[in-house]
Amino acid sequence: MAGKLPVSPLAPKGGFPDLPVIKGVRFAAVAAGIKYKDRADVMLAICDDTATVAGVLTKSKTCSAAVSDCRAKLGGDGSGGIAIVVNSGNANAFTGIAGVDSVHRICEATATATGIPTNNIYTASTGVIGEPLPDDKITEAISKLSATASEDGIESAARAIMTTDTFPKGSTRSVSVGGRTVNIAGIAKGSGMIAPDMATMLAYVFTDARVSFDTLQAWTKEMADLSFNRITVDSDTSTSDTLLVMATGRADVDVESAPEDEIAAFRVALFEVMLDLSHQVVRDGEGATKFVTVAVQGAESDEDARKVGLSIANSPLVKTAIAGEDANWGRVVMAVGKSGAAADRDRLSIWFGATLVAKAGQIAPGYVEADAADHMKGDEITLKVDLGLGEGLATVWTCDLTAQYIAINADYRS
Amino acid sequence: MAGKLPVSPLAPKGGFPDLPVIKGVRFAAVAAGIKYKDRADVMLAICDDTATVAGVLTKSKTCSAAVSDCRAKLGGDGSGGIAIVVNSGNANAFTGIAGVDSVHRICEATATATGIPTNNIYTASTGVIGEPLPDDKITEAISKLSATASEDGIESAARAIMTTDTFPKGSTRSVSVGGRTVNIAGIAKGSGMIAPDMATMLAYVFTDARVSFDTLQAWTKEMADLSFNRITVDSDTSTSDTLLVMATGRADVDVESAPEDEIAAFRVALFEVMLDLSHQVVRDGEGATKFVTVAVQGAESDEDARKVGLSIANSPLVKTAIAGEDANWGRVVMAVGKSGAAADRDRLSIWFGATLVAKAGQIAPGYVEADAADHMKGDEITLKVDLGLGEGLATVWTCDLTAQYIAINADYRS
Repeated sequence: MAGKLPVSPLAPKGGFPDLPVIKGVRFAAVAAGIKYKDRADVMLAICDDTATVAGVLTKSKTCSAAVSDCRAKLGGDGSGGIAIVVNSGNANAFTGIAGVDSVHRICEATATATGIPTNNIYTASTGVIGEPLPDDKITEAISKLSATASEDGIESAARAIMTTDTFPKGSTRSVSVGGRTVNIAGIAKGSGMIAPDMATMLAYVFTDARVSFDTLQAWTKEMADLSFNRITVDSDTSTSDTLLVMATGRADVDVESAPEDEIAAFRVALFEVMLDLSHQVVRDGEGATKFVTVAVQGAESDEDARKVGLSIANSPLVKTAIAGEDANWGRVVMAVGKSGAAADRDRLSIWFGATLVAKAGQIAPGYVEADAADHMKGDEITLKVDLGLGEGLATVWTCDLTAQYIAINADYRS
Repeated sequence: MAGKLPVSPLAPKGGFPDLPVIKGVRFAAVAAGIKYKDRADVMLAICDDTATVAGVLTKSKTCSAAVSDCRAKLGGDGSGGIAIVVNSGNANAFTGIAGVDSVHRICEATATATGIPTNNIYTASTGVIGEPLPDDKITEAISKLSATASEDGIESAARAIMTTDTFPKGSTRSVSVGGRTVNIAGIAKGSGMIAPDMATMLAYVFTDARVSFDTLQAWTKEMADLSFNRITVDSDTSTSDTLLVMATGRADVDVESAPEDEIAAFRVALFEVMLDLSHQVVRDGEGATKFVTVAVQGAESDEDARKVGLSIANSPLVKTAIAGEDANWGRVVMAVGKSGAAADRDRLSIWFGATLVAKAGQIAPGYVEADAADHMKGDEITLKVDLGLGEGLATVWTCDLTAQYIAINADYRS
């Protein structure tokens, strides 16, 4: 499949961004021939000195061996350097004890080639599941990856982790902290049935700032909840979802000791990188032709607002209506009603774009369908819902559900 | 839309069943011109004497005015007769106070025409939402309906409540209780995006046995949980879902005083009617080409088994694979993992039809994909999952997800 699909019409204009060097991190990619022909499928990101790694991993009860291994290693002291090894083409999921052994062998080979302790080596695999991972192809490639890794190799890493993504995903922000410039750069691959055989979202974010593990982990969790955990393509949860954030400290700036406004600026920059990457994942949703923002307000709580937002964003009824450019607000009402959150049909208001469609549980006075219909013709759709109950807020993002999605998932198998 | 879609390939062979007369209940249908041309769109079911009505209604927080009205009336003593009035073509949902007034006027007109107390008059509306219900067309038709209602009119009622259903749905069982024959007959219309504008499942079951309200309500709830609440077409919940079960007592048999084995036989018969109707709803799922049974065992609890079953049955990933006749067990693993139920990937076994595909968290020894692939080519698919943890069991039913489903919901609007 990879490379055969046309680039998503929602891909960012201008292609892959220019990502700055993140001091202390080197990247390499290689074509190890795991599954795809003629493209890189293994990447190494390496920090030779002590660094901090935070992360958020899938909640799936059938998670992959690599996810279990990463979960166990997070929170270590990071001394002696960090390595991240990712392959595409095979997810090493539902492979039993053989899968655990594969992760072990990859970590050992990486430790041998790089001198980094195995406890600081994080792996991920993405692609077909249930097939044994030919880890010998990865372990054989590690020395070469280690030898060729360079600070400007991040785009090659972004390409190596793609499966059926139609474009590589990168994002960056720079911010001034303590009189110095701190850089943040991240890469991701797509989620939610992007791959014909298994959904997988992988994201790696790097900064040359110094941040302690406890703080970086807290920020990563908080920001993932507002970005990667607020997107949905089709409501299916991967066995392999992994987000890691590495802080090398090599810009010689300690974020936590900076003035409050600079800490805030760093946090905003880190969040923007994560949000941008998560939106790019939605923009590469299978068959997507519309990028959809669902903004919920007036809920009894933020958690209720999130429930309503995800109920709308996951509804096949809503998503097919958007694909059909139909301002079908009745389906939004239905999705609010089934969400489980507190709701009162007679206090509900709904906007499509800037057009108030429904108010106080009825069609809005003076509503003209042509106004909403105009908005639906664009490729950036906004649905706003006010529950009229309280102060709870949430925004989630999704894409439409098209026949191309069915074709990709029903008619093909990689 | 109605009538334009071809009859579902999964429709029961032999067409609408011969339903027996249920002593005490008369039916009528009429073309009131609410929306559709040249077809009946209002039905009346009437029991002139005291009877028992039990029911289960949608949990949607944005439920229709008719649902709220039915909920308030259930549990009344049923003296003076019972009437059920249902229209298709307009759901009278999200219509504010006007919708409440419509329900009130329909009940008043029915009371006037039939002499039945308004407290015993149950209504439902199904079709487009957000548009005012032209209830004058219904109230004008009531006298005629009341005058023409006959004991053999149930098929016309089944046809009048259709929206985009491709076939009318009926089911019956007879059972001997207390030396007499007791009949049960039910009708239903489709759920889950069957209608382009709103999902609606309506089902009405009638028996001439006598059952007290408390018992009939308990049985109805218990049986709905194992039938109508175990089916899913697309995970969307209607604002109008209504199941009513009426016991007229006119067969002069008191079920609760019968011997235990006869009570059991009656319960089985009632459940089979409800299960058959719920399966017919799935068989008429939009775009469906496969009827899918998902049987889960070995869960920690029945509730966990139900969660896993619905997670599999609602997964677009699983449903598109079935549409593509792909024995893609990896997607089943994914759906187990995301269900929220206790699961251990290394104890999981999966069957496609009779073929053991995966065992103990890995592909089963000796598994030959061709065996499972053969099963996937049929139009009755069974997925069995054993979680290997406990004694919890559940079976749920769904259909596949096809491009036709997208076409119906994205490209058309009624």
